Amino acid sequence: MGRKRQTIFFENKPYISSAYSIGGKKEGDGPLRKWFDMCLNDDTFGEKTWEKAESKMLKTAMTEALRRGGRSVEEAGAMLSGDLLNQLMSSSFMARDMHIPFLGMYGACSTMTESLILGSVLVDGRYSDDVVIGASSHYCTAERQFRMPLEHGNQRPPSAQWTATAAGAMLLSSCGRGEAAEAIDDGSYIELRDVRVEAGTIGKVIDAGVKDANQMGSAMTPAAVDTLLNHMEDTGRDLDHYDLILTGDLGFIGKDIMRDLLEGAGLNKADIETRYDDCGTMIYESQQDVHSGGSGCGCSASTFAGYVYKKMRRGELDRVLIMSTGALLSTISPFQGESIPGIAHAVSLVSE
Amino acid sequence: MGRKRQTIFFENKPYISSAYSIGGKKEGDGPLRKWFDMCLNDDTFGEKTWEKAESKMLKTAMTEALRRGGRSVEEAGAMLSGDLLNQLMSSSFMARDMHIPFLGMYGACSTMTESLILGSVLVDGRYSDDVVIGASSHYCTAERQFRMPLEHGNQRPPSAQWTATAAGAMLLSSCGRGEAAEAIDDGSYIELRDVRVEAGTIGKVIDAGVKDANQMGSAMTPAAVDTLLNHMEDTGRDLDHYDLILTGDLGFIGKDIMRDLLEGAGLNKADIETRYDDCGTMIYESQQDVHSGGSGCGCSASTFAGYVYKKMRRGELDRVLIMSTGALLSTISPFQGESIPGIAHAVSLVSE
Repeated sequence: MGRKRQTIFFENKPYISSAYSIGGKKEGDGPLRKWFDMCLNDDTFGEKTWEKAESKMLKTAMTEALRRGGRSVEEAGAMLSGDLLNQLMSSSFMARDMHIPFLGMYGACSTMTESLILGSVLVDGRYSDDVVIGASSHYCTAERQFRMPLEHGNQRPPSAQWTATAAGAMLLSSCGRGEAAEAIDDGSYIELRDVRVEAGTIGKVIDAGVKDANQMGSAMTPAAVDTLLNHMEDTGRDLDHYDLILTGDLGFIGKDIMRDLLEGAGLNKADIETRYDDCGTMIYESQQDVHSGGSGCGCSASTFAGYVYKKMRRGELDRVLIMSTGALLSTISPFQGESIPGIAHAVSLVSE
Repeated sequence: MGRKRQTIFFENKPYISSAYSIGGKKEGDGPLRKWFDMCLNDDTFGEKTWEKAESKMLKTAMTEALRRGGRSVEEAGAMLSGDLLNQLMSSSFMARDMHIPFLGMYGACSTMTESLILGSVLVDGRYSDDVVIGASSHYCTAERQFRMPLEHGNQRPPSAQWTATAAGAMLLSSCGRGEAAEAIDDGSYIELRDVRVEAGTIGKVIDAGVKDANQMGSAMTPAAVDTLLNHMEDTGRDLDHYDLILTGDLGFIGKDIMRDLLEGAGLNKADIETRYDDCGTMIYESQQDVHSGGSGCGCSASTFAGYVYKKMRRGELDRVLIMSTGALLSTISPFQGESIPGIAHAVSLVSE
C-alpha cells in the first residue's frame, strides 16, 4: 500500500463521517433538488453582497458537516477549503469565523477533490482525527470576476457553462459514525453504510491550448482523461471496477469529448456509456437555459456531498470515483497570450 | 508524538534534502545577497511580462531544488506551491511545464510554511518519498494586482512594505542527502549537517480589524502571535528552545508590534530581543527606500531556502522556528467594508 506513481492508497481508509450540501435557487429547481441538504430561496442568502453570500454558504456547509458528525470546533484538527474568488475570499472569511486551523487550497474547480485527498492524508496518517473540508462557488461572484458583470446583460455563447451557486463540505474522521438507519421516501427505514476514502490520484497540470473562457469543458477534459488513465494504471483497475465515475464540471461538450477520448484510449464503450457521468450535466435540467451545463467548485462539491454521499450511505452505490476538474483560468493570462491549463484530482470512495 | 492541538510532530522528521532561493535585482543589492543561489540583473528575467518573469523564477527554483537534490521530475511524488497572483498564475503556469502531480496552495504570504507543513506530512507519512515545495512573489505583479499600477507613480506611505521579487523552493525527502562538506568564504571546508522538519503548527485565521492595505504588518501580527503562543503551548517550549525565531514579512512596524505583544504575553524580553527577527526587516537595507520593509510569499520563501537553510546546513544554527505570515487581502473585500484577516503557520527545523 502507500503510494504508486500519482496514486495514494489509504491504509486506514478515512471515514466521511458526515457531509452537507447546499444549492442555490436554480440548483434547487434542478434534478438534484432532493439530494441537497439545503436549497436557497434567494441567492443573496440574506447578505448584502454575492461574495458574502457565497462565504456564508460555505460556512453553513462546514458548520453543519461538523455538527452532523458530532464534532465541535475545538475537535476539528484542521479545515481545508477553497473557492474561485481571488485570494480565496469566501474561504478566508469563512475561516475567520470558524477558529479552526486553516489550510487554503486552490485548484480552481478541482478544489473539492484536492481538499479531500490532503484531508484524507491528515486523517489516514493519524495527524488529525477529524478534518473538515469543503468548496464553494456562486454564479454571480464568478461571472463578475471571470467574465462580465451581470448588469452588462452579456449574451452567453452555447458553449458557456453556468457556475453553480452551491457549496459542499465533508467531515473526515478516523472512526465511523456508527449511525444505523435512515427513513427513506416511502417511510421505511434502511440501514446506512459507512463511506470511506480508499485512494486518491493527484493530477498534473495539462494544457490543451484552449484560450476561450467560454470553452471550459474543452480546456479541462485532457486533464481529466490524463488523471483517469493514470488512476487506472496505478490501481490496475478497469472502468467496471466502479459503479459510477464522475467528473466535476466538464459540461455537455466536455463530457462528449471525454467519452471520445476514453474510447480512443481503448476503453470499453459500454462501460463508458453506463458508468461515466459529469456533475455539470446532472445538476441542471436542459430547459434551465444553462447552455453547456454547470461548472464551479460548488458543482462537484455539492453533488459529491449530496447525491454521491447519500447514495453510498444507503448502499445504492458501492464504489465511486469522483474527480473534480479545474480550469486554471486567470483574467490576466489570456491578455498575455496564454491558454487555459487544466487539472483534475480523482478520489476513490467505497461504501461498506 | 503525532498531534497536539494545532501542532503536528513529525515522527520521521523529513529531510530538506535541497533548497534553492532566487532574489531580484533589489534583493540582490541587499544584505542577504550572499545567501541567494541566484540574483537577477533584470527583474523581467528575459520575459515579456512581470507575471511570466515571476512564474519563471518559481520554475527555476523548483527545478534547481529537484536537480540539486538528485531527483528527476518522475521521482517527485508531488509539488505544492502558491503565490499571490489571482488563480495562482505563477504556480499554475510553472506546474504546466513541470509534469509533476500538483497541489495548489493559497495562504497569501504564509504559503511557504503552509506548503512545508503539508509537504512534510506527505513525506513523513510515507505517502511520497520526495516532494518539492515553493512560493514566489514579484514587486511589479503584486503592486499591479493589489495596489496601483507602477506607471501610476503612486506615492507610498511610510507604513507600506515592498513586495520582494523572490522565490524559494525546497525538496523534502524521506532520506538525507549524505553530502559531507562545502567550501566556505575563507577557502576551508566545513562538514554539512542535515536539516530536518521536526514539527509544524497550523495557524488559524485571525482578524484584528485593520482595513488599510498599506498596514499589512499590523494586520498580520495578531495571527503570528497566536500561532507562536499556540506552538509554545503545544510543544511545552520557551523561546530559548530556538536559536532563531523568524516571522515572514511583518516588516519594521509589525516586528515592533510583535515584540510588544510577546512581551505583553509574559515572554522573556531578552529572549525576544536576541532570538526573534523578521525576514521583511532582513532582506533590504534601510537606505533601499522600502519604507516598512519587505513582504510577499517570496520574502520568507527565499530567506528560509537561502539564509536559514544554509546556516543550518553549516551548523551555525541548530534549532529554528520559521513562520510565514499572510494577509488574506482581497481587492474586493475592502469595498464591502471588510478588514484584512491574517494567518501564520510555524515550522520547527532542526540541524543535526
